[in-house]
Amino acid sequence: MTTPSANDELTLLDRYWRAANYLSVGQIYLMDNPLLRQPLQAEHIKPRLLGHWGTTPGLNFIYAHLNRIIRQRDVDLLYVCGPGHGGPGMVANTWLEGSYSKIYPHISEDAEGMQRLFKQFSFPGGIPSHAAAETPGSINEGGELGYSLSHAFGAAFDHPELIVPCVIGDGEAETGPLAASWHGIKFLNPQRDGAVLPILHLNGYKIANPTLFGRSSDDDLQQLFSGYGYEPLFVCGDQPAAMHQQMAQALDQAFNTIARYQQQARSGSADEAIPRWPMIVLRSPKGWTGPKEVDGKKVEGFWRAHQVPVSACREDDAHRQILEQWLQSYQPETLFDEAGKLRPELRALAPQGNKRMGASPYANGGRLRRALNTPDISEFALETGVPGSHSGEATKQFGHYLSAIFQRNQDNFRLFGPDETASNRLTPVFDVTSRSWMAETESYDEQLARDGRVMEILSEHQCQGWLEGYLLTGRHGLFNCYEAFIHIVDSMFNQHAKWLKVSRKLGWRQPIASLNYLLSSHVWRQDHNGYSHQDPGFIDHVANKKADIVRIYLPPDANTLLWVGDHCLRTWDRINVIVAGKQPSPQWLDMESAKTHCEAGMGEWHWASCTDEPEVVMACAGDVPTMETLAAVDLLRDYLPALRIRVVNVVDLLALQTQEEHPHGKGEAEFDALFTRDKPVIFAFHGYPNLIHRLTWQRNNHRNFHVHGFNEEGTTTTPFDMTVLNQLDRYHLAQSAILHVPGLAERHPELLDDLQQRIAEHHRYVREHGEDVPEVRNWQWSGRR
Amino acid sequence: MTTPSANDELTLLDRYWRAANYLSVGQIYLMDNPLLRQPLQAEHIKPRLLGHWGTTPGLNFIYAHLNRIIRQRDVDLLYVCGPGHGGPGMVANTWLEGSYSKIYPHISEDAEGMQRLFKQFSFPGGIPSHAAAETPGSINEGGELGYSLSHAFGAAFDHPELIVPCVIGDGEAETGPLAASWHGIKFLNPQRDGAVLPILHLNGYKIANPTLFGRSSDDDLQQLFSGYGYEPLFVCGDQPAAMHQQMAQALDQAFNTIARYQQQARSGSADEAIPRWPMIVLRSPKGWTGPKEVDGKKVEGFWRAHQVPVSACREDDAHRQILEQWLQSYQPETLFDEAGKLRPELRALAPQGNKRMGASPYANGGRLRRALNTPDISEFALETGVPGSHSGEATKQFGHYLSAIFQRNQDNFRLFGPDETASNRLTPVFDVTSRSWMAETESYDEQLARDGRVMEILSEHQCQGWLEGYLLTGRHGLFNCYEAFIHIVDSMFNQHAKWLKVSRKLGWRQPIASLNYLLSSHVWRQDHNGYSHQDPGFIDHVANKKADIVRIYLPPDANTLLWVGDHCLRTWDRINVIVAGKQPSPQWLDMESAKTHCEAGMGEWHWASCTDEPEVVMACAGDVPTMETLAAVDLLRDYLPALRIRVVNVVDLLALQTQEEHPHGKGEAEFDALFTRDKPVIFAFHGYPNLIHRLTWQRNNHRNFHVHGFNEEGTTTTPFDMTVLNQLDRYHLAQSAILHVPGLAERHPELLDDLQQRIAEHHRYVREHGEDVPEVRNWQWSGRR
Repeated sequence: MTTPSANDELTLLDRYWRAANYLSVGQIYLMDNPLLRQPLQAEHIKPRLLGHWGTTPGLNFIYAHLNRIIRQRDVDLLYVCGPGHGGPGMVANTWLEGSYSKIYPHISEDAEGMQRLFKQFSFPGGIPSHAAAETPGSINEGGELGYSLSHAFGAAFDHPELIVPCVIGDGEAETGPLAASWHGIKFLNPQRDGAVLPILHLNGYKIANPTLFGRSSDDDLQQLFSGYGYEPLFVCGDQPAAMHQQMAQALDQAFNTIARYQQQARSGSADEAIPRWPMIVLRSPKGWTGPKEVDGKKVEGFWRAHQVPVSACREDDAHRQILEQWLQSYQPETLFDEAGKLRPELRALAPQGNKRMGASPYANGGRLRRALNTPDISEFALETGVPGSHSGEATKQFGHYLSAIFQRNQDNFRLFGPDETASNRLTPVFDVTSRSWMAETESYDEQLARDGRVMEILSEHQCQGWLEGYLLTGRHGLFNCYEAFIHIVDSMFNQHAKWLKVSRKLGWRQPIASLNYLLSSHVWRQDHNGYSHQDPGFIDHVANKKADIVRIYLPPDANTLLWVGDHCLRTWDRINVIVAGKQPSPQWLDMESAKTHCEAGMGEWHWASCTDEPEVVMACAGDVPTMETLAAVDLLRDYLPALRIRVVNVVDLLALQTQEEHPHGKGEAEFDALFTRDKPVIFAFHGYPNLIHRLTWQRNNHRNFHVHGFNEEGTTTTPFDMTVLNQLDRYHLAQSAILHVPGLAERHPELLDDLQQRIAEHHRYVREHGEDVPEVRNWQWSGRR
Repeated sequence: MTTPSANDELTLLDRYWRAANYLSVGQIYLMDNPLLRQPLQAEHIKPRLLGHWGTTPGLNFIYAHLNRIIRQRDVDLLYVCGPGHGGPGMVANTWLEGSYSKIYPHISEDAEGMQRLFKQFSFPGGIPSHAAAETPGSINEGGELGYSLSHAFGAAFDHPELIVPCVIGDGEAETGPLAASWHGIKFLNPQRDGAVLPILHLNGYKIANPTLFGRSSDDDLQQLFSGYGYEPLFVCGDQPAAMHQQMAQALDQAFNTIARYQQQARSGSADEAIPRWPMIVLRSPKGWTGPKEVDGKKVEGFWRAHQVPVSACREDDAHRQILEQWLQSYQPETLFDEAGKLRPELRALAPQGNKRMGASPYANGGRLRRALNTPDISEFALETGVPGSHSGEATKQFGHYLSAIFQRNQDNFRLFGPDETASNRLTPVFDVTSRSWMAETESYDEQLARDGRVMEILSEHQCQGWLEGYLLTGRHGLFNCYEAFIHIVDSMFNQHAKWLKVSRKLGWRQPIASLNYLLSSHVWRQDHNGYSHQDPGFIDHVANKKADIVRIYLPPDANTLLWVGDHCLRTWDRINVIVAGKQPSPQWLDMESAKTHCEAGMGEWHWASCTDEPEVVMACAGDVPTMETLAAVDLLRDYLPALRIRVVNVVDLLALQTQEEHPHGKGEAEFDALFTRDKPVIFAFHGYPNLIHRLTWQRNNHRNFHVHGFNEEGTTTTPFDMTVLNQLDRYHLAQSAILHVPGLAERHPELLDDLQQRIAEHHRYVREHGEDVPEVRNWQWSGRR
């Protein structure tokens, strides 16, 4: 191994860095004359100048130094680029190492390819201005900021050979999700996991502001990151030669430390404490090596370098001259040969083959993905007997299935959740694994282990970020969460959906396992925690996304949850949302019926329906709405034995849409056969009623849909009172049916009165006794059709 | 001032604490026999035991000690209770000090009141299990966790007399938003602002897990919080007497330090550095003073104490005995007199009047709210001339209005944003104020000042949390944000909407200023940043909330934005979302027309419409859709001069709903007069098309609505290409009109061909030149009707 003071090597490395910088500036500005072999003319400049220069030289600096590490140590590195808006840097580096042209052969390694490389950047029909799915070596876009470090930890879990340098901009470092993600080391086991090397890149400025960390003293940063558990190493300055020396030394020290911890852990000689992992604080000027001043205003080392430092290069000769001098300052003729190819002595600095960070299979996780080994769900089927006669806990039963998943997929599956796995009743998983916990434990602790595979931290952001990183690098997982609080990651969901939409169209990106959510402790069973915990709106948010990406399932009982959960875990390139109950509740379908029903996505429950053409359809989606619907049907059969009722249950919510809107959408004939073309449909829905209208407004019978759901009426009360407050209960559903079947209310006003009395009686009883009326608590489906 | 070692006082204080603990346990368990004057029977126990004991004794401990500080120093304290699920503690303390009975006279300060106090807790028709809007002294619920400390800073800004002790549970401390909120001190100016005293309460456990901070060493915590800029004071133990001593000393030290910093700053003797504010780390057992063990399992000091530590008290005599002994351990007879009233020597420990934290006007911010002093918007009106003939930047013009707001409301208004105020073109505000910045500055820095009133941190969570805290304590503000990234605070928005819904129904809570969002850099003008920055879905999320809480405005130009912005800033108890453009674009309405149009919420644009009954309605909402609609109308008038077109613009989006659904909803007749009952409506919409369907599906003419909007087709491209990709452009809108006016497409197939050719020409041109075709770039409304 050469020492960092091997100046020859660092001189070469500096040239490599200049090549990357040259290519970065070229992408932002040029559409022609890529090697500056002619004087720079207006027509060589793009009409719209887009891109972010400020962070880019720092990203290039790090990339070049990591190449050195890879070559010297033959390690697998995944470069997580938090400042993904520095897209030109990632593109430049992957072109220099050859991985870009491998994927995109028309962007060849010569002058013509370089011209195309430049022109395509931020150009219509070209590539985005940020590192994105299109960028080799990238697993995240970094546009929104906040998730790079949790992605890095997700990538490192169960990848013992992998080291993930993660560049965090000082802007991103101000965000909440990033601030919490430093805790990741408390879950990283050097025996079975890889390592993460955070590189906090302080260039001092955001769009128009200094950064908080940029203006913090070294001493404060030293204390802060020591307090988080790291050993910070500082690399600070603006003189390239000295900075190369510092950076090489810091990286050598960091990788030595990582190797030592791993070696100790893997040879069994580690002590029990969490290793004090290294991290690097890199202070370098924003827009480093760019123009110092433009029009008399400070640019390099200031926020004016954030995007395009000199902007009127097409119209203004003086600006164009600044640009030309800037580009020439990298001495392109010393970097590229006659043909425009990187000179061989520089190309030799890049790693080879899959060791190149742009060719890393870890950055194209589908290449590493091994199918999940799933058990036969029948093994976990709940005996149901006559529908509605048995009680069961859906998520607990699914927990048994998950424990088999853990046993069959020892290094390929993890379960994530914000301290809610037990609360969501997935407790059977603790029979076969524990919570991941690297800190010290007490004698009375339960289900904590250094090799635990249940990832719990009270941060939905970390759960989501870790899972995304885990999936993006080729593994499988499930995020279990309270339904209301999954909104915390709405925006992360968006960004992942966007990533999938784009990556699915790229032939070279292999499919990754779907991102699966299991939402429990849902709106109808947060009567004890109250209004703040009651929100079913995440599925509304999800339904806005591209139809080929998203699925929403509302299994009404344990066997349907088993089918749905198993199905979701075996899909790829999707986001599946499952909403399921954890409380004991009636079980409706045996496993065979559950399979048939879930495969269809929705269907008539014949055992609860009349055989003839119905007068009213009682539809339901979700476990509580299903129970209330069947209870309402029971009531109606008491009142009106001759009334022809059809019961329809919907599991696959987006199947309500038309076939044009969603691949699971039902055809017109099938939909009409189920919901009729003209009969009232009383639809008891788990979420906001408007979602059903939004999904069905194109249907022939939509005008007759009367949807009951969550109307933002909540508080701390009893479970049944929650449904009454929102008129989703059996009494209101029965009322609704009577009101909407033509003539019925006129013929039987006494029934509406009776239902009103039952509601009043409920109110009186619950406020006196603090629990639901026995008739409701002890209710069981009659079995009558 | 007595010293903390005044043991008599601390002995009394300990009894006060025991009284609060007693009342907390009583609330969780008892529905009768509140003073245990009879042996505890099953029927005294509630049938459902709900509530969180674990955090409560710690909250009570802190509350009692803060009372001591208030009495000794006569300070105004606002108790921000992050672990709001410890509701029984907040309720107990406000009852003890008398502020509870003042607001709720039926919960009187005697045995009968105590019985009601106990029974109502978590009981149907009673109060929530968490501290919530119903709880005196509370400004947040704390159910979701993560926002307490940003609320505390928001409350302290511009309240120089206020000190905000903020209790942060070690669960909440793991969340991202909380982790970033420690930075608040870098924005707190001791000269004009109050102080925040964070109290990190480490009881070691979450629902079923140890906490990360609970298992961190004192040394790590010392370093971490020093690194954040604080001076941490540690109070650790489980022996009450010693803990009282430690806590009293720590608080004395903290309040002395705060007083010193404030005195220095206000007398002009402070140095420029950010004060090293104190914070307290309080380590005490979870469920402190509760049962040590139940059924042989550890409870006190463990996660089993999180909710109800002994659960079968109604059915199980042994459990009931544990409960009785536990309650008796507080010696209620020494705490309450014969009548059930707190003994006078204890009551003397509580502050008086508004100094009581439960009676603090800061916790009922409407009591402090002063109306915003707003200028006449006409002063800022943009000259428009003939509609469409002038260009203007809407948000910049609104920036001029905001600068006047700043001038007229020196301590009553702030603007919040994640480093995007300049990017969103609100730059005129920097003529009159700066960004708040307490750290050191460089000579070349711009618009940074210790007394700046623009609050910028790259954390949407902090912007939202600060603004909420600022509003909840009686002031006014605006959050400006990139449209796509406002999803980051979806969940915070939810919780604030929930708070407003509940607080509006409480007579004693005075209205607070509305929470106003100005979303700019919106989906149609993020062509340069690309797909990750393109998401208009926040308004979908907002539209799910209770109609009386939310408003959504899409002003199409500068004068409409001025009217809408001014209107929103003068409302209360609402959440207003304004989506507006920042780019130069055509101006349509002079100020007088803007007022009329915005007051109506939507209307026909007569200057662009035919005078007769229309054959097609071209509707639009949002600035870009409006421009594309008018351009489409221009095209159609070229093609078909005789075609009768009506142009309708919608500003107040929820006015599309029916009157039953929303207070702004249009009546059936008015809606039908505008949109007709049977003519095609080509609706160009800013957001996801389904939102328009969801808002209008009950309308007579809904079947004829053809909505164009964002279909998740995005990338880095030109502005116009963004609309073409999503078929929101003039060509697709004109096509849609031709296709949906009966017979037109059949009579004029050549027009569809021509439009298709224009689209193809656009594609060719933009991919070659990298900018939009001149015909689009230079387009101006013809003025033809």
